[in-house]
Amino acid sequence: MTWLELPEDSGFGIENLPLGVFLGGGRPGFRHGVRIGDAVLDLFGMTGFPVHRTRTLDAFLVAGPGAWRDLREQVTEWLTDARHRVRVEPHLVPLDEVSLHRPIGVADYVDFYSSRQHAENVGRLFRPGTDPLPPNWRHLPIGYHGRSGTVEVSGTPVVRPCGQLGGPDDGELPPFGPTRKLDFEAEVGFVVGAPSEPGERVPVEAFTEHVFGVCLVDDWSARDLQAWEYVPLGPFLGKSFRTSMSPWIVPLAALEAARVPAPPRGTGLLPYLRDDGAPWGLDLALEVRINGEVVSRPSFRDMYWTPAQQLAHLTVNGASVSAGELFASGTVSGAAPDQWGSLLELTANGTQPLRLADGSTRGFLEDGDTVSLSASAPGPGGTRIGFGEVVGRVEPARP
Amino acid sequence: MTWLELPEDSGFGIENLPLGVFLGGGRPGFRHGVRIGDAVLDLFGMTGFPVHRTRTLDAFLVAGPGAWRDLREQVTEWLTDARHRVRVEPHLVPLDEVSLHRPIGVADYVDFYSSRQHAENVGRLFRPGTDPLPPNWRHLPIGYHGRSGTVEVSGTPVVRPCGQLGGPDDGELPPFGPTRKLDFEAEVGFVVGAPSEPGERVPVEAFTEHVFGVCLVDDWSARDLQAWEYVPLGPFLGKSFRTSMSPWIVPLAALEAARVPAPPRGTGLLPYLRDDGAPWGLDLALEVRINGEVVSRPSFRDMYWTPAQQLAHLTVNGASVSAGELFASGTVSGAAPDQWGSLLELTANGTQPLRLADGSTRGFLEDGDTVSLSASAPGPGGTRIGFGEVVGRVEPARP
Repeated sequence: MTWLELPEDSGFGIENLPLGVFLGGGRPGFRHGVRIGDAVLDLFGMTGFPVHRTRTLDAFLVAGPGAWRDLREQVTEWLTDARHRVRVEPHLVPLDEVSLHRPIGVADYVDFYSSRQHAENVGRLFRPGTDPLPPNWRHLPIGYHGRSGTVEVSGTPVVRPCGQLGGPDDGELPPFGPTRKLDFEAEVGFVVGAPSEPGERVPVEAFTEHVFGVCLVDDWSARDLQAWEYVPLGPFLGKSFRTSMSPWIVPLAALEAARVPAPPRGTGLLPYLRDDGAPWGLDLALEVRINGEVVSRPSFRDMYWTPAQQLAHLTVNGASVSAGELFASGTVSGAAPDQWGSLLELTANGTQPLRLADGSTRGFLEDGDTVSLSASAPGPGGTRIGFGEVVGRVEPARP
Repeated sequence: MTWLELPEDSGFGIENLPLGVFLGGGRPGFRHGVRIGDAVLDLFGMTGFPVHRTRTLDAFLVAGPGAWRDLREQVTEWLTDARHRVRVEPHLVPLDEVSLHRPIGVADYVDFYSSRQHAENVGRLFRPGTDPLPPNWRHLPIGYHGRSGTVEVSGTPVVRPCGQLGGPDDGELPPFGPTRKLDFEAEVGFVVGAPSEPGERVPVEAFTEHVFGVCLVDDWSARDLQAWEYVPLGPFLGKSFRTSMSPWIVPLAALEAARVPAPPRGTGLLPYLRDDGAPWGLDLALEVRINGEVVSRPSFRDMYWTPAQQLAHLTVNGASVSAGELFASGTVSGAAPDQWGSLLELTANGTQPLRLADGSTRGFLEDGDTVSLSASAPGPGGTRIGFGEVVGRVEPARP
């Protein structure tokens, strides 16, 4: 038990202890912090270690699982043993006195495509008349690299992107302008802490040796740009304008009670993808809100490919991973239509608009709309692990 | 004229002055250097500016075109005015006393697909029976993000990657193992120096406000992995194991005499891609060698999309670019078969192997093969601008 008075069921109890980077609270410079309830514990203030006043968590994460475990044990002790109270309290900053920043450098950003329901939904919309699942889908976690430099923290505005909206209709030139199909994608992100060596594979069993923790990701998408550009080399401008991540990285160590086996697969797997010994399905319940109204409740526990498999695949060719890189699950869509994680799916590519409580409808996002993703997971002893939110408001296209 | 005695036609005369990062020469730590002939001018030694002893050029490049111009003028003065000779000579380090390192941080890495000949060659091989050019190809420079973290400097070994070699033949599982189709791709890379703001477009006319210079890129590829994985989200493990770049970044300022108009296009362009006012075709002559033997001489001057168009496209959706990011042209393939820039094309996907001078044949690369790409361009007054080499030797797959 912690000596702190915490709001009940905050999701940020002593079992969670996510890491982030903050400014403010009367303290100079960027600092690493641990969220506890509605406060942030200033790690530089507590430890005096210069690593905790760096711009991102990367310089701490690179130290690896031993250092992560030591910090977690230390913070747990500070917050549970009342003898530390006098020393700790000056370093607890109210959440509303700080601003939260992108917690990692995002050395690389990979986006996977790991929800079978999502892949099938998209296949039906983008490639009608064919098998909705590409032939490789059941054999490997399909993924691609996204733009690292435009991954920003929750709250960063999302400016409606311009681009080519499709092929030429009757004229010679493609239509050009602000996207008419701006969408969100509800995803879960995984933060690499400890690097791997070039040429080294990270087997599914070594997932926790490299991945520090979990956050939420909104992979904003312009569906008209994407549909026109993505053959043959994949999504580019339809995604690269903005990706948003939540500010708190929930350690894998906080998610032991949330682990579940992956769902049964319809086909055998190559040895490097077999995960019987490392079940990293996760029982995360997501919520998607548009302007405050819940429009979907995707469940992460049904994802076909787990993050341990994703990392094993990403490195099976010898590609190395770096501290502070991010890989995301791809859109999380459950079996039921009210569990789908994008407007593309929820509105059948805009043809069946959602009706919101205020009577308005949405095929895709409108200027001024705010999308927020949140999630929680079971913690130890009936507690709840919160992920907070990733929020973005749509701003009009620049002239 | 420089007071230095330079090897004749070295390609690294006073007109070139490329920047790189070196270790050695009896000097502690990473230093920025300018190549002149077969020597490196130690910029930290000459200036005492701490920015020139950083790990990459990024911290200098971010200062923008004014700083790039000032440095170039300063170095030109040092190397041409004999009064500086006494002060400069102690800071000239023989090239063979230093090791050269990756000169930029590679904040992001984008690979384009800008040679029409290459796109048509690949289309015929990978998508037989369809129009070899995808319908979007003439309307936009197709590109995708690659893995930043595995871009390394020339000389870094290329370990043969393992992966899924294709779809299941008769069994349930795909064949797995070391790639049987390891290939090079001869490309030209462009280094962003000055960042752009989120939401800001970089018009074709502003190319030189952001891009500092040019290097050579070998986009190593595993064709069997790539062919199996790339639908629908693009290349991933078939490319991510290694990309190599040459160590010297040739400033755009050295390439004025090499500028040529882009070739005529068969279709009109959207305004943001029109480049009449900013012709950034470049007359670079490339050579590809396998184990020292020239196997191809791709010409860059025929590229359909110029780097100025590529940057305009990359940012038209508001995506920002960062100091030290790299974008590459895609494989440079000219009209004639001896100008094609990959073995995929030179050997028709391995079906028509090349015969080398030693009597051996190559469908794709073998362990122990060394591939080197070099290039030169016309400089002012009949001089020649050299790019040096990007070299990689193939090592066997790790067990």
